[in-house]
Amino acid sequence: MSAQRHPIVLGAGLFYPGGEHITGWRSPAAEPDRYLDLDYYAEFARTAEDGRFATVFIADELYVWDRYDSGIDHGVNIRPEPLTLLSALSQLTTKIGLAATVSTTYNEPYHVARKLASLDYLSEGRAAWNLVTSASDEEARNFGKDANLDHAVRYRRGEEFVDVVQGLWDSWDDDALRYDKASGFFADRGKVHVLDHQGEFLSVRGPLNIARPPQGHPPLFQAGASEAGRALAGRTADAVFTLGSDDLAAGQRLYRDYKLRARRSGRDPEAVKVLPALQPVIGRTLAEAEEKLRSIEELTPEQVALDLLSHWLGEDLGARELDEKFEFDPDVAGFNQSKSLYASIIALLGERDYTLRELYRTVLRRRFVLGTPDSLADRLATTYEEHAADGFILMFPTLPDTLTDFVTEVVPRLTDRGVYPAEYAGDTLREHLGLARPGSRYAA
Amino acid sequence: MSAQRHPIVLGAGLFYPGGEHITGWRSPAAEPDRYLDLDYYAEFARTAEDGRFATVFIADELYVWDRYDSGIDHGVNIRPEPLTLLSALSQLTTKIGLAATVSTTYNEPYHVARKLASLDYLSEGRAAWNLVTSASDEEARNFGKDANLDHAVRYRRGEEFVDVVQGLWDSWDDDALRYDKASGFFADRGKVHVLDHQGEFLSVRGPLNIARPPQGHPPLFQAGASEAGRALAGRTADAVFTLGSDDLAAGQRLYRDYKLRARRSGRDPEAVKVLPALQPVIGRTLAEAEEKLRSIEELTPEQVALDLLSHWLGEDLGARELDEKFEFDPDVAGFNQSKSLYASIIALLGERDYTLRELYRTVLRRRFVLGTPDSLADRLATTYEEHAADGFILMFPTLPDTLTDFVTEVVPRLTDRGVYPAEYAGDTLREHLGLARPGSRYAA
Repeated sequence: MSAQRHPIVLGAGLFYPGGEHITGWRSPAAEPDRYLDLDYYAEFARTAEDGRFATVFIADELYVWDRYDSGIDHGVNIRPEPLTLLSALSQLTTKIGLAATVSTTYNEPYHVARKLASLDYLSEGRAAWNLVTSASDEEARNFGKDANLDHAVRYRRGEEFVDVVQGLWDSWDDDALRYDKASGFFADRGKVHVLDHQGEFLSVRGPLNIARPPQGHPPLFQAGASEAGRALAGRTADAVFTLGSDDLAAGQRLYRDYKLRARRSGRDPEAVKVLPALQPVIGRTLAEAEEKLRSIEELTPEQVALDLLSHWLGEDLGARELDEKFEFDPDVAGFNQSKSLYASIIALLGERDYTLRELYRTVLRRRFVLGTPDSLADRLATTYEEHAADGFILMFPTLPDTLTDFVTEVVPRLTDRGVYPAEYAGDTLREHLGLARPGSRYAA
Repeated sequence: MSAQRHPIVLGAGLFYPGGEHITGWRSPAAEPDRYLDLDYYAEFARTAEDGRFATVFIADELYVWDRYDSGIDHGVNIRPEPLTLLSALSQLTTKIGLAATVSTTYNEPYHVARKLASLDYLSEGRAAWNLVTSASDEEARNFGKDANLDHAVRYRRGEEFVDVVQGLWDSWDDDALRYDKASGFFADRGKVHVLDHQGEFLSVRGPLNIARPPQGHPPLFQAGASEAGRALAGRTADAVFTLGSDDLAAGQRLYRDYKLRARRSGRDPEAVKVLPALQPVIGRTLAEAEEKLRSIEELTPEQVALDLLSHWLGEDLGARELDEKFEFDPDVAGFNQSKSLYASIIALLGERDYTLRELYRTVLRRRFVLGTPDSLADRLATTYEEHAADGFILMFPTLPDTLTDFVTEVVPRLTDRGVYPAEYAGDTLREHLGLARPGSRYAA
């Protein structure tokens, strides 16, 4: 391990309670009747903590996926809310970070700043914020709008939102509280700041009604991969969650792109951690991993796969022929959900001809990385060593088995190779990430 | 204890971390440097649980009280956020209810429904919602507005908000989840409901992305004491937090008023619990209690008391003469903060002449009830037996001492008298309150 470089950072991602695969809940090890039991999530977090994961990473959306009937029939549309879940988990874990996905599109920064600061206190410095913008019309309609905000608008709002939240976190200087019973002065008024923000989307006075968080600012994760998303991440993110790729050179280009954007914003490139997603399917042999993936795929009704593709492309493909050449006229600029996912599917179509059936199978399958413990450890270590990643957000196709296998089989190989810590280096998430505690914007 | 009537219900209220008195943090037992430590709140909740309190009751506001400098200098303007705090406390307690104050003025019902449902799952049926409307211009300015909503408007919005939240809680029938690995059906689509609410203030599609809460609907607490507030409570509240009074007959009238309003809304009057606030100062003798209150009052700078009165009356009284007769031209109809508190001060002025100094001292003092363990237990039991209350929300002037004294000295006397339970009757907050689990609006 380089004396300078921080070791590999791992995040344990979770969106569907049963794992990243939409019908992972049907896998043999799955326990779908526990998806609203806190114990289920506590076991997930503790297993990840056994593996010295820097953080759990709770993905989120603000709606039920009912655009197609198959979503309600076969998908998992129930889950605990991230901030309440992580607050409870703060008492059932001791070291692991607690990263909550919170959208900037349908929230108020005063509430978000306050809840994340509160979680940072409850967890003694382990909170993080995964910033997303909300990308579906269904979400808009749960929040008084007819349709989703335009992509560029929601990123402009996102950037303003971050600035307001971080400004609110700085409301109280670190030494503003006096608690002086004798004089009766609880706080030093000169060390309390009124933000008085007036911007394009937000006007927020402040101060926040909680002191500056233990981490100063809980770390900011971002996943936006579009031009607007990457620009925002370069300016503001502490850690970037990227889609991940089999192509090492492409990963290196993306890695350098984020570091360069950070540098151009006057930031230390080391202070932006690039964490590709990785969805491992682990077997004792590659053939066993292949067989595992096949068995997971068999549990996904074709209708679900087709409807997911319809969703990602923003067009109902239900009337198309499944086994004829798939023709699609893309409009990346006009597309208003996740642009990066859309563009990645369009890129596939540029590589060769696909039937619709081949396409949805490919789109679902390419997200998974098959391997043995040795080959996966080697892939992670090499990606890190070759500067295509500072770490990874693991998304487990099925749970709890894939997480357990990863912690038992892959983690020790990373530690043996000297690229992964044998124990937690500190107590706060910033320490796990190798990130300094930021000063206040009001510091002299 | 009557065979029919549910025993006394107690709530352990908390707004200022140091107790209900604004400078309670200066009292000898206070530990002001722990006001952002979870352990401090865990001790509070566990002591209340030792006393079989039905619930902790976390009051809240969405701003720092900096209208006057004395607020920042001498008040406690930092606190954990209620929903994150109570989620953490759900893991450090086993029986006690967890009531979070959440404003309907600057929130989105989808978020509120989801977080409270999530807390209800995390706590296995112990969540509650104390509904408030936000009443100050400072709060408005933290949420993109220039000034607070008009009183009538915020109550109309509050009522619509409750309806939407409860509708979202009913999104999934209690038996909607199938988790059937064999067939691949996770849910029964016919048992999932789209709310499609379109109202004066809110438009919310649904469904909510969490199943129906363990309690069906987490109980709804309300504190509004104005005509609009009482009307809303009569139609919707499971428990009403009233100001409390020394006057038994006045308490009985208010009690009957709430019960009558519930009956007129087609509800069972027993299903609306009337819980006056009570702020006890406990001494072994009345003289000792009087001495305790005097020592608490001495810790409050006169400027703070004056500024609090200015705030409650919505007029800066700083230039007035302290020791001349206080003249005030009230405008209850036009007043736009807490109308009930305002009206109660105006009522005082109708009783006799006050100097300004006498008035602010009286207004602060009248909120406390002095007593011995015997006299306080007798007062509580009598108020309950004479049908002026179904229980009480205790607000402790100083902490942790007043709570400890109450649990140690007053609670056993209530139990001995047969009006208070010797142990928790059940596991959920609805059971503690003696309230049935409500059916879904979609039930046949």
